[in-house]
Amino acid sequence: MRVHVVGTGLIGASLGLALTRHGDDVTLEDAVPTHAALARDLGAGRLPGEGEELAPDLVVVAAPPDVTAGCVLEALRRWPDAAVTDVASVKGAVLSALRAAGADLTRYCGSHPMAGRERSGAVSGRHDLFDGRAWVVTPTDETRAEVLDLVTAVATAAGAAVRRLPPDAHDRAVAAVSHVPQLAASLVAARLEDLDEPAVALAGQGLRDVTRIAASDPHLWTQILAGNAGAVRAVLAALADDLSAVVDSLGALEAGGDPVGARGTLARTIAAGNAGHARIPGKHGAAPTAYTTVRVLIPDEPGQLGRLFADVGEIGTNIEEFHLDHGLGQPFGLAEVDVVPSAAAGLAEALAERGWRLHG
Amino acid sequence: MRVHVVGTGLIGASLGLALTRHGDDVTLEDAVPTHAALARDLGAGRLPGEGEELAPDLVVVAAPPDVTAGCVLEALRRWPDAAVTDVASVKGAVLSALRAAGADLTRYCGSHPMAGRERSGAVSGRHDLFDGRAWVVTPTDETRAEVLDLVTAVATAAGAAVRRLPPDAHDRAVAAVSHVPQLAASLVAARLEDLDEPAVALAGQGLRDVTRIAASDPHLWTQILAGNAGAVRAVLAALADDLSAVVDSLGALEAGGDPVGARGTLARTIAAGNAGHARIPGKHGAAPTAYTTVRVLIPDEPGQLGRLFADVGEIGTNIEEFHLDHGLGQPFGLAEVDVVPSAAAGLAEALAERGWRLHG
Repeated sequence: MRVHVVGTGLIGASLGLALTRHGDDVTLEDAVPTHAALARDLGAGRLPGEGEELAPDLVVVAAPPDVTAGCVLEALRRWPDAAVTDVASVKGAVLSALRAAGADLTRYCGSHPMAGRERSGAVSGRHDLFDGRAWVVTPTDETRAEVLDLVTAVATAAGAAVRRLPPDAHDRAVAAVSHVPQLAASLVAARLEDLDEPAVALAGQGLRDVTRIAASDPHLWTQILAGNAGAVRAVLAALADDLSAVVDSLGALEAGGDPVGARGTLARTIAAGNAGHARIPGKHGAAPTAYTTVRVLIPDEPGQLGRLFADVGEIGTNIEEFHLDHGLGQPFGLAEVDVVPSAAAGLAEALAERGWRLHG
Repeated sequence: MRVHVVGTGLIGASLGLALTRHGDDVTLEDAVPTHAALARDLGAGRLPGEGEELAPDLVVVAAPPDVTAGCVLEALRRWPDAAVTDVASVKGAVLSALRAAGADLTRYCGSHPMAGRERSGAVSGRHDLFDGRAWVVTPTDETRAEVLDLVTAVATAAGAAVRRLPPDAHDRAVAAVSHVPQLAASLVAARLEDLDEPAVALAGQGLRDVTRIAASDPHLWTQILAGNAGAVRAVLAALADDLSAVVDSLGALEAGGDPVGARGTLARTIAAGNAGHARIPGKHGAAPTAYTTVRVLIPDEPGQLGRLFADVGEIGTNIEEFHLDHGLGQPFGLAEVDVVPSAAAGLAEALAERGWRLHG
């Protein structure tokens, strides 16, 4: 495939690196020529030759969100035979701008690779940035089938898992899974700005995780949030309502007494977070792992559990979850050892060999 | 030291494991006797012998927050010669309850190890849970010096870094660095509960980080938040004000036009998050690392930057940050390679050996 990348920041350069490895002919262009030269030096592709007439199969616009629609229009005009996609994280606004400008939407298919780093620029680019990540394609009724196929082929060649969504459904989804989490991280981190030093020194891993993405670029994120204002506002307003209920409950508890309703609101807030968290798929888009339980009978005498842990350690199986039921007055306890499904049979066999009694 | 641990959940069991390794005589007790037996089996200490009269130097109450004050009172009564501490994550409420009950506060010193895991119970205990973590001690004017010394010695023996704060300053600090981040994670995760499947499937690492602690126990957290209602409400109300400004700005952008003030609010929100995030100390309570810059002159011809990266890779130095200045019309570019201070001199020397020209 001949792919022309417009914009050689983190995403454009990473795509160039991935496609070059894949054997595609990647040409590079950037509004700042030294940025394109840097991406070339890093192996992301080649610069068009002096006077070369490019004839790309696909043009990928990887420019900042605010200039994306303009770059797509320009690309559709410059290469009348090429398919064009963009990688902006908001799709509805780009599509509206193209439609308003009377663009040829048969050759355009929006897309959004769900990948990034806190660092920007070609120098942070990685050929494996898209490996196993979702890459959303957002065709419209006007998009020609072969254009959708080309964009899908390029995303797949870059190592991503392609998912298809209507543009507006995409924007509502990223509001909840990306844009609102970004704002929450920023708002929590902002509360640290004026905290005194001994207080900041108590920061632990929980705070570091919640606020990691608070280091993101304000300029880029203003463009993203403004481009998805409606969908972000809807999710954020619902969150603000929940937050307001929590503030009121804390106020009631602070005022004294021990109002049951207030504690109920706090418990429901944390429990709703549990339920939402449980829906997040695993690292590479896989469903949350379901573990397999190996049940082991434990003689009710000192040291037996320690011996079980030592044995499991020697066998080399990772324990994911562990429960112990000690029935009152029973001579045995029942340990439930949860492990990844592929390890269960081997663990059970090895434990039986070591003399443990397993329970169906 | 003779240390008696009351409550053998994650924290109590981990402390027992750490102190046993340290050579202390650790006895264990739990409201649920099989829990204490489990902790013993895992190596966290011993159960008191039949009819044994314990004479601990220090009693550590590691019970749930709601019953902590009662357990401390009981411990002060049962062992009139022992010092007593607790590990609850809120200090003011425990102290008020003790004062109201007329407890002997000369032998009490509150404390709070800033360590935990998403999993609970003795079986999740780790002897290195406190390694390098902050352990706050919160003595009052009434606390005897030798009691403070004992608590400090035990926290240090467990591997923690002891920090001293007044109880109310502690509570304000953890509101900002722990309790509000917990609520933010829960509120963001709660928005996923009713999201449709294709939308949840787009979840990436950013969302996973922001919501990791949303898996926490609602029962425990209701106790913590209710116990620190005043301080949490103050931080949360300030966050709610910021949030409300963001919602208004998004509403203005959604309504059309391109209000400058609205974009300004979004940019300031993300920028304030940057500033707050920059104040978070590194992994083990160290200040954020300051890097040392090695400046390398780059001949302005294709492939030179790639050669530099290959050389740095061969030398084996990790690049933390990288900047490149390509002056217009200049024959040279200047690369700024930021590395940890201890690696800078070696990198500069090795690069010079490979023929690179270094710059001041």
